[in-house]
Amino acid sequence: MSVNSFGHLFRVTTWGESHGSALGATVDGCPPGVAVDEAMLQHWLDRRRPGTSRFTTQRREPDQVRILSGLYEGRTTGTPVQLMIENTDQRSKDYGEIADRFRPGHADITYWQKYGIRDPRGGGRSSARETAARVAAGGLARAALAALVPDLTITGYMVQMGPHRIDRARFDAAEIERNPFWVPDAQAAEDWAGYLDGLRKSGNSVGAVVELVASGVPAGLGAPVYGKLDTDLAAAMMSINAVKGVEIGEGMAAAELTGEANADEIFMGDDGRPVFSSNHAGGILGGISTGQDVVVRFAVKPTSSILKPRATITRAGEATEIVTKGRHDPCVGIRAVPVGEAMMACVLLDHLLLDRGQTGGVRGRIGPV
Amino acid sequence: MSVNSFGHLFRVTTWGESHGSALGATVDGCPPGVAVDEAMLQHWLDRRRPGTSRFTTQRREPDQVRILSGLYEGRTTGTPVQLMIENTDQRSKDYGEIADRFRPGHADITYWQKYGIRDPRGGGRSSARETAARVAAGGLARAALAALVPDLTITGYMVQMGPHRIDRARFDAAEIERNPFWVPDAQAAEDWAGYLDGLRKSGNSVGAVVELVASGVPAGLGAPVYGKLDTDLAAAMMSINAVKGVEIGEGMAAAELTGEANADEIFMGDDGRPVFSSNHAGGILGGISTGQDVVVRFAVKPTSSILKPRATITRAGEATEIVTKGRHDPCVGIRAVPVGEAMMACVLLDHLLLDRGQTGGVRGRIGPV
Amino acid sequence: MSVNSFGHLFRVTTWGESHGSALGATVDGCPPGVAVDEAMLQHWLDRRRPGTSRFTTQRREPDQVRILSGLYEGRTTGTPVQLMIENTDQRSKDYGEIADRFRPGHADITYWQKYGIRDPRGGGRSSARETAARVAAGGLARAALAALVPDLTITGYMVQMGPHRIDRARFDAAEIERNPFWVPDAQAAEDWAGYLDGLRKSGNSVGAVVELVASGVPAGLGAPVYGKLDTDLAAAMMSINAVKGVEIGEGMAAAELTGEANADEIFMGDDGRPVFSSNHAGGILGGISTGQDVVVRFAVKPTSSILKPRATITRAGEATEIVTKGRHDPCVGIRAVPVGEAMMACVLLDHLLLDRGQTGGVRGRIGPV
Amino acid sequence: MSVNSFGHLFRVTTWGESHGSALGATVDGCPPGVAVDEAMLQHWLDRRRPGTSRFTTQRREPDQVRILSGLYEGRTTGTPVQLMIENTDQRSKDYGEIADRFRPGHADITYWQKYGIRDPRGGGRSSARETAARVAAGGLARAALAALVPDLTITGYMVQMGPHRIDRARFDAAEIERNPFWVPDAQAAEDWAGYLDGLRKSGNSVGAVVELVASGVPAGLGAPVYGKLDTDLAAAMMSINAVKGVEIGEGMAAAELTGEANADEIFMGDDGRPVFSSNHAGGILGGISTGQDVVVRFAVKPTSSILKPRATITRAGEATEIVTKGRHDPCVGIRAVPVGEAMMACVLLDHLLLDRGQTGGVRGRIGPV
Repeated sequence: MSVNSFGHLFRVTTWGESHGSALGATVDGCPPGVAVDEAMLQHWLDRRRPGTSRFTTQRREPDQVRILSGLYEGRTTGTPVQLMIENTDQRSKDYGEIADRFRPGHADITYWQKYGIRDPRGGGRSSARETAARVAAGGLARAALAALVPDLTITGYMVQMGPHRIDRARFDAAEIERNPFWVPDAQAAEDWAGYLDGLRKSGNSVGAVVELVASGVPAGLGAPVYGKLDTDLAAAMMSINAVKGVEIGEGMAAAELTGEANADEIFMGDDGRPVFSSNHAGGILGGISTGQDVVVRFAVKPTSSILKPRATITRAGEATEIVTKGRHDPCVGIRAVPVGEAMMACVLLDHLLLDRGQTGGVRGRIGPV
Repeated sequence: MSVNSFGHLFRVTTWGESHGSALGATVDGCPPGVAVDEAMLQHWLDRRRPGTSRFTTQRREPDQVRILSGLYEGRTTGTPVQLMIENTDQRSKDYGEIADRFRPGHADITYWQKYGIRDPRGGGRSSARETAARVAAGGLARAALAALVPDLTITGYMVQMGPHRIDRARFDAAEIERNPFWVPDAQAAEDWAGYLDGLRKSGNSVGAVVELVASGVPAGLGAPVYGKLDTDLAAAMMSINAVKGVEIGEGMAAAELTGEANADEIFMGDDGRPVFSSNHAGGILGGISTGQDVVVRFAVKPTSSILKPRATITRAGEATEIVTKGRHDPCVGIRAVPVGEAMMACVLLDHLLLDRGQTGGVRGRIGPV
Repeated sequence: MSVNSFGHLFRVTTWGESHGSALGATVDGCPPGVAVDEAMLQHWLDRRRPGTSRFTTQRREPDQVRILSGLYEGRTTGTPVQLMIENTDQRSKDYGEIADRFRPGHADITYWQKYGIRDPRGGGRSSARETAARVAAGGLARAALAALVPDLTITGYMVQMGPHRIDRARFDAAEIERNPFWVPDAQAAEDWAGYLDGLRKSGNSVGAVVELVASGVPAGLGAPVYGKLDTDLAAAMMSINAVKGVEIGEGMAAAELTGEANADEIFMGDDGRPVFSSNHAGGILGGISTGQDVVVRFAVKPTSSILKPRATITRAGEATEIVTKGRHDPCVGIRAVPVGEAMMACVLLDHLLLDRGQTGGVRGRIGPV
Repeated sequence: MSVNSFGHLFRVTTWGESHGSALGATVDGCPPGVAVDEAMLQHWLDRRRPGTSRFTTQRREPDQVRILSGLYEGRTTGTPVQLMIENTDQRSKDYGEIADRFRPGHADITYWQKYGIRDPRGGGRSSARETAARVAAGGLARAALAALVPDLTITGYMVQMGPHRIDRARFDAAEIERNPFWVPDAQAAEDWAGYLDGLRKSGNSVGAVVELVASGVPAGLGAPVYGKLDTDLAAAMMSINAVKGVEIGEGMAAAELTGEANADEIFMGDDGRPVFSSNHAGGILGGISTGQDVVVRFAVKPTSSILKPRATITRAGEATEIVTKGRHDPCVGIRAVPVGEAMMACVLLDHLLLDRGQTGGVRGRIGPV
């Protein structure tokens, strides 16, 4: 086991600190023959990149990914793929003040308590910069999925920012790419911009909820009882910085339903495959995909690096206050959208490989004998 | 990797079907010298056992656990501990009808789609009976924790059943053991009894939310960035049958908070250790425990085995209806309380071992030099 | 990770002590739909069973295996298979004397040093009885291999006992089943019987070398650079009790060869597949199978439980002598043959699943375009 | 699991190809607070570096290692350490000829058969260049061991080259650093130089045996029954390029011993710890270290990249001949010495962490009560 790794057969190990010389992902187990290049990965990284709108951190990182291994003539060879992103904008002077005091709500204190040493420059390993490596790995997973399951799509978007939720009646997927929040609701995009401007100017921050939908996922991915698809999705999302809750399908609201209401009734579709009257299950039953859309949501807490002074202590145990002056995201949930998509791509590819490993991809047939 | 295993150093593999001859847990990596016997494990199993009130399934299973290996003269030897529970009440005739049709909301269809074969007797491997093995393993984890961290306690309780939530103002831990719902609110216990009686008589079921609190957890457990304590807790809870959402601390509600509101401010306590003004974080920052209470919640969907007829299809693809006549739980969330506690015990012990493996238990000191 | 487990996708965890109530193997990841029953597994266990000739321990264990889970109507369901063997002949009085003193060459002292507690009855977990569980798991692996690669065969035999080696010129596979040593050389069988009788009567024991050959292994199993097929085979064999050396193909003798002599030259066979002029490589190049026979050898040391008095110390550190009076094998190498075969079956099945997981079983074609 | 990783808690994933832009090791789980810098790692890499004598490949690679992550102010932080070595001498023209034909005895054919794509430049992933990454990781492991077990030493040396073995009577550890073969026998060094010059000039190559001794290893490392110290050592050594056999203690020769001869008798030492009359066991009993020297040997086959023409086929299946003109090692066993040492360091550190994880380092005491 490696605590900085995830996945079983498609296994990703991320490494690197916010202000070290580089960070990256070591990806093992990628299927051979997958066509991929740096530009394809860069496409996904650019979506997560800071500084793309006034609503994300103004830190200027090009986040340029390099593929150092595992490719030959534009195709994966089946050997480890090293994805490296060099850090260029390392204004560590911004962080000098916080080396000795702990930001409330931040990993500063726990890293110190666990290891007795911590890299205070930009949060070190606990920085959200680590998620750039996940997005790079997710790009590789997408390329492999495109080869193996061409119809599979993964779409992430925000459904809540602070107290403001989208109106599902206004849901329009086409809107997602048209606003800086990846929100599928044009009205919400407009409202949120004003709301977030206010927060940003006051030096505050706010949380969010991101929803991910994977369509075209074959039935049969996942396995009882700890290798469940939803178990791995929950772990993948909870491992993202600042995530505090994960839901599959109905999620926490499933508690309110009766068994009668919660049942996704089953019918035969015109294409000879089962169809369901609803998708309370979020596309997963008993830990295994049904063939419906796989639906995941996760909540991101507000960043703790804010201009509002908060009470804290120094390493010597003295009471003090802290204000974080660096360039931070007023709503880290925005940039969590491409990160969540990347994690979902990695999990789905991994389970596709696991499934064909154990079952060979043979499926129980439903239909006339 | 093993899809039916969880944990890293304290590693639990569960096995067995609902109506097979036995089921159990193979537990590897337990520290040596832990005093434990079958009665200690039985204590926890009896809490999960069916038939203890009219609100749980009337299936009569003694759920008697036997320790087949790994002990010598009442202490663990450091070798694998096999915990076996024989199945005695295997009325498989109850399930004959469902061998050929898929219950909506149940794993019947996905097991078939994945494996092309499934054990229909009582749900086979997808049955909640599997959680008995987790409770047994959790009992062993508790015994080891008692030896290593005597002050650590784990308490689970229900906070919501269907639309009914507890009133936090009435929270009384002493109530938990006094009602069949493990609910820390005497009024709620009374109200819920009437509500659930109605559902039960109508052959329906309902979901629930369970909360778990671990006190006395040392600071420093967990590790970046995929071996986070909250990552493993989320996976552990999501792997429990019927769970659809997992929250740490504020959980999904973290989305609504500002950074200012969400900050758990830090002070020095009288005992020379950090104290916090609040616990929005649920005791975990950057994936590592802070020393505060670790707080987890999870939502359990209503069981899909109900007397209400639901539309479905047969294996041959023919439209039909299904009614599940077996003896089922109107609210599986009740029996999920001891299961959640068991999973938390396993995760905490595992991270305790992992931490002393990597760091030797040395801690970064906070206080005057 | 679990220290009592091996394999990646086909994962075996063994449990149990020599004189506990039972021992067994928890097998996860078996492909679904494999036809298997207890009699098929018993076939392999009977080959390893003690007391089948005067050359193995006279302990009378029926070693009857029971399948407790993972099967439905005679086929595997893809869920964990629990294989349990109850211990019936637990004459622990034989071992009373050794509870307080350490047998030289035995795990007694190291278990004590590591755990501070040990089960002295029959060697506890360190007993060769644990290998019965491996043989049961190997039987399941063979059943799965028979379904997936019908032409694959695994054959083990002894090639050396003490100083006596077989004469390769007399190699006759048909002899293997005709003598109590599984030796493919009729003359050796006769000679060894006299030699071992002498050792047995004098209360001594001796080592051996076992060779394993797998034919019909598809090209392409194994993976760089730590998941090599030979890496896993070496680990599998070295994990067997008393094994001190493992060789692939030429093994240690490869040191003596020049590159010119060691090259297995390649030609095209009549069936359109590559053939090789020799098999110094033992069927593995770069950790990946070539399609040739996979050839492994391992050396088993003599058992340390002998009637010859040896100097040792007690737990209190006092000098003493020890004589082991139990019923032991004069040459444990004999019963290591079916154990080695079982381990090879498990490793090959595991790599078959791993390979189709990553590559989908697609192969680089050799031949006219 | 990751096929390019080894270790459990101290987990090393190597990546990179011979002629890619870089290669390296991603090391997770290193204890925090270990003092290390690039110069300390370079020390070990320089021992493995090509071109240090006329007996190793004349390829000129500086093999300069860079630490990209996991350090702060000269100490490990407990987060992943990325060790990168850039490739500078990539004369891929040397390898153009072999892109389409398979070297006998080389991984060319199996990579092709498995993946359907291979990087022919310098052997790609199957090149011995990969071992540079292991040596870098081993350097880090040595630094951690130095902090945790200051008395532990690891020494590797050659004991055989081709048919020539050292004379144990002339064993002189001080000689190891005085000759290009790391051979502890001055006379052998002289003889071997002449022998290898002959081979080199004729364009041939030869195998070797390397021995590794770790002194000062605490008793109690390793665990039954698949996490044995010798199991992991065997896997570690077998995973090194060109290794065909691994031995612990007596190794294959254990087959020739009687139980009486093989018993390492136990006495109490003057320092209150057990001492042994001999070390047939190689410092490991039942998979757990005894406190004696841990002794491992492995055989390295001759490189298959030679100037002697050998028969082979092309990818199209046509018969042809091949001569490998690149700059290769006449005896790769020489440079395998520092590689073996590195693997041993990684395995020992890993087991040290595993042991304190499970047992807390508490030991069963031997001596007067």
